[in-house]
Amino acid sequence: MSPALAEDEARRRFASARVVRLATVSEAGVPHLVPCTFALDGAAVGGDSVYVAVDHKPKSTTNLKRLRNIAANPHVAMLADHYDDDWSLLWWVRADGVASVLDEPTAMSRPVVLLTERYVQYADRPPAGPVIAISVTRWTGWAAS
Amino acid sequence: MSPALAEDEARRRFASARVVRLATVSEAGVPHLVPCTFALDGAAVGGDSVYVAVDHKPKSTTNLKRLRNIAANPHVAMLADHYDDDWSLLWWVRADGVASVLDEPTAMSRPVVLLTERYVQYADRPPAGPVIAISVTRWTGWAAS
Repeated sequence: MSPALAEDEARRRFASARVVRLATVSEAGVPHLVPCTFALDGAAVGGDSVYVAVDHKPKSTTNLKRLRNIAANPHVAMLADHYDDDWSLLWWVRADGVASVLDEPTAMSRPVVLLTERYVQYADRPPAGPVIAISVTRWTGWAAS
Repeated sequence: MSPALAEDEARRRFASARVVRLATVSEAGVPHLVPCTFALDGAAVGGDSVYVAVDHKPKSTTNLKRLRNIAANPHVAMLADHYDDDWSLLWWVRADGVASVLDEPTAMSRPVVLLTERYVQYADRPPAGPVIAISVTRWTGWAAS
């Protein structure tokens, strides 16, 4: 059996994850990685979009490396994965895409609604943004069995 | 309180993780992400090294993108993270570094021993390699509380 997941199954597993890791790349070609909450928008114009927002979780700075990287290089990758010491249960899904940064209230409103619906933690304090909007160009998935 | 973890605490949490995500970058500047088992070698010449091996877990190809990317661009990042719906328990640690690929049996022997010690799943079937050896240039960590 091929270990590759069909695209719809890959997308379904990604959508069910609570956290993904976002990889961006600096102008100098150095990768940056950070875990993110996210929402998948299957009804976005032009295909699947993933939204990641800057929220109230403590940061050491608001001049975030991920935003500077995307301004220099819009190519990103996101990964959802499941680890278990029973390796027959391992799986992962990667979404490759192209990112843009939204900071206008009108553009951020739908992402913020979707994120707030997904995470009860945002109910009292929706993400203030900016929002990273990623247009997914490829779903790739793998499962051990 | 600052959300940043001290370097030794960041390193300790990373070392205790069972899986990390490895980000590499293609020659064209596109990031690639994959989860990996790993071993941290605190006794390597020149400082901390992290080893990731190509093992027997099913792959769609042996011509792996991560290896081609490292040949073109040695800058990598790795991330260990903990998610919980109680966001006061969130933490992550990132190791930035420079990677090389080892495929000679002599060079691979210590990494394979360390990996086999960490993962009982390798006892009967040690990773055949190649091994990605990452010289860690920076530990960065964050904890919500």
